[in-house]
Amino acid sequence: MSTLYKQRDDLFFMKLALQEAKRAAEVDEVPIGAVIVKDDEIISKAYNLRETLQDATAHAELLAIRKACEVLGTWRLNGCSLYVTLEPCPMCAGAIILSRVDRVVFGAKDPKGGACGSIVNLPADKRFNHRPEVVEGVMADECGEILTKFFQAKRAEKKPASE
Amino acid sequence: MSTLYKQRDDLFFMKLALQEAKRAAEVDEVPIGAVIVKDDEIISKAYNLRETLQDATAHAELLAIRKACEVLGTWRLNGCSLYVTLEPCPMCAGAIILSRVDRVVFGAKDPKGGACGSIVNLPADKRFNHRPEVVEGVMADECGEILTKFFQAKRAEKKPASE
Repeated sequence: MSTLYKQRDDLFFMKLALQEAKRAAEVDEVPIGAVIVKDDEIISKAYNLRETLQDATAHAELLAIRKACEVLGTWRLNGCSLYVTLEPCPMCAGAIILSRVDRVVFGAKDPKGGACGSIVNLPADKRFNHRPEVVEGVMADECGEILTKFFQAKRAEKKPASE
Repeated sequence: MSTLYKQRDDLFFMKLALQEAKRAAEVDEVPIGAVIVKDDEIISKAYNLRETLQDATAHAELLAIRKACEVLGTWRLNGCSLYVTLEPCPMCAGAIILSRVDRVVFGAKDPKGGACGSIVNLPADKRFNHRPEVVEGVMADECGEILTKFFQAKRAEKKPASE
């Protein structure tokens, strides 16, 4: 596949991940969304549901990986690409390595907890038995903006109405 | 609590984690077991079920954390200790940090994939917003031996009967 086609696909699937992030915001969850794709087909979509499920592991990527395993009937996600609006945390980067996802495309960087270059870089570590390709910065502004707006609204909610 | 009591408790709960690991071996899964404890009460127990569930995320620790969140009705596992027979991988160490488990006690080290000192040391990294206490080496020999025996048996199975 040419680089141009790949870039067009990356934009297309990141837009879907961003739609998932918007769904998270609608249920008052930190807006992060993920999509898993294999052979141009969407295998799974998910968004952060930590508060709704009261499950510390219910990040968009982890839910998308679990769904993809279920859909494909195997824990091996070779040949799959994972699109996610925010840089994966250590748990999700670890799950990406374990599930042997081929390619990870993320939007905004997470300087406070990212495990794909920001704090640590787990997918690049040659000592683990699988190293997915990582592409960063696809629709980074849009992916970051939805988070910024969410937290701004949260802070505004906390302030008394008189202020 | 005195150090002596803590050591006795650690042995007691690690024995339970080892029982979970044995259950994994019984269903032909890599034998790793975990137990989560709060105020001396067992909140959840789990063992590796990756092959059975065909789920890359079905490690003992992750399943135990998800169960504990369900039992306690919250994603915050403050006040909990997690006992696991093998050093947690990056995914599980990440989930431990996210769920704010207070204390992690593990048995055998995992030089090939451990994220609590062997390859990386995620719980010790001050840049993440939670740092659980980690105790290693409790019943390390027993916890390692059950894994060694499992893989020895697997290799023997693969050889033709005539050899």
